[in-house]
Amino acid sequence: MRISELSRRSGVPVATIKYYLRENLLPKGEAVSATQAEYTEEHLKRLRLVRALAEVAEVPLSRIRAVLEAVDKPDIDLHTLLGVAQYAFTPPTEAPADDPDWERAQRRTAELLAELEWRVGPGSPARGQLTRAVAAMERLGRPPSAQMLRGYAAAAHQAAEWDMDCIDPGASREENVQQAVTMSALMEQALSALRRLAQEDESARRFGCGADGAGAHGEG
Amino acid sequence: MRISELSRRSGVPVATIKYYLRENLLPKGEAVSATQAEYTEEHLKRLRLVRALAEVAEVPLSRIRAVLEAVDKPDIDLHTLLGVAQYAFTPPTEAPADDPDWERAQRRTAELLAELEWRVGPGSPARGQLTRAVAAMERLGRPPSAQMLRGYAAAAHQAAEWDMDCIDPGASREENVQQAVTMSALMEQALSALRRLAQEDESARRFGCGADGAGAHGEG
Repeated sequence: MRISELSRRSGVPVATIKYYLRENLLPKGEAVSATQAEYTEEHLKRLRLVRALAEVAEVPLSRIRAVLEAVDKPDIDLHTLLGVAQYAFTPPTEAPADDPDWERAQRRTAELLAELEWRVGPGSPARGQLTRAVAAMERLGRPPSAQMLRGYAAAAHQAAEWDMDCIDPGASREENVQQAVTMSALMEQALSALRRLAQEDESARRFGCGADGAGAHGEG
Repeated sequence: MRISELSRRSGVPVATIKYYLRENLLPKGEAVSATQAEYTEEHLKRLRLVRALAEVAEVPLSRIRAVLEAVDKPDIDLHTLLGVAQYAFTPPTEAPADDPDWERAQRRTAELLAELEWRVGPGSPARGQLTRAVAAMERLGRPPSAQMLRGYAAAAHQAAEWDMDCIDPGASREENVQQAVTMSALMEQALSALRRLAQEDESARRFGCGADGAGAHGEG
């Protein structure tokens, strides 16, 4: 197919495709004339993956390259490949020096993961992400209870099981990585929205005026 | 107390306190000399709330004012007050015109909330947040199944119940709003991190090499 069809089928503008070609995120097509190249289904698959990483999961281009390299190495197994993709779109956290709240949060995070017996690599950037959230609550004098963290962890694991149900080991590596990052990023936004909606519902049930739901926000 | 002590006890720099005073987010202290003012525990409480809104929940100053006004109106009940705070830190979503994916997502979102019988106001910005995430998945040709959305909703509601357990109707209005926005914003980050960690664990269990966890990312 020509670049125009590649654009139409992927939903990526031609200018963006040309940019990805220049940045070597997409292999060049086969030249059919001085100004035209022919692209294949493989290009389309790769383009969809780059788009999912760049636009949906907001992975910086430099890290997209690392994900594509892992996709192209067949000796990297599916679990490791999904890990490379997930690590690429979780920004690293810098640990502040000499911060007792941070150290306490780091200890609590490590203890929680050990207690749960989750198989998480020592370099997982989500460890830092969790530590940062807990440290911020420590700093405000409102640390989450161990029970609350355990409850949230159980809910998160249930969600992760549904997430992994969407990964088909028989599908192509590109498709699996695309599925994993897309779902991870977008269902995270959905989960955040659902929690806010549920907070509003639960607040109405507990603190709203009347038991008939008339106290819903925006209806007062 | 003097402004220096207010700064020390709140953890907010003096320059920031002066900025909040100029912006009328904090009432002026009682002047004790031409250059000094005296502040009370009420100032400290208000300052902690402004800080939680501005720094933790990243609420823009213009919307912080609306939250403070609601805090100061005693005829606004706790449920409505929590709603004002939550709406203030959920950015509004603009619906694109003539977008069939958006319309489908909006319909699915409304149907889900109706089925769940959640008490959510028609103007809740989290509706738009959920619609946006579902529409993005529709656009990519990977819409979440109804079963997945229901599962996520159940997990979100469980989290929201724990969240509401942290609200003490006997506490001051400032404290409750501060607690609600702090916990909502920070436990959201914690939940996001826990889900990524759980995905890594679940991926290791399903796709990792060996059943002994040796396939955890970063240990290969």
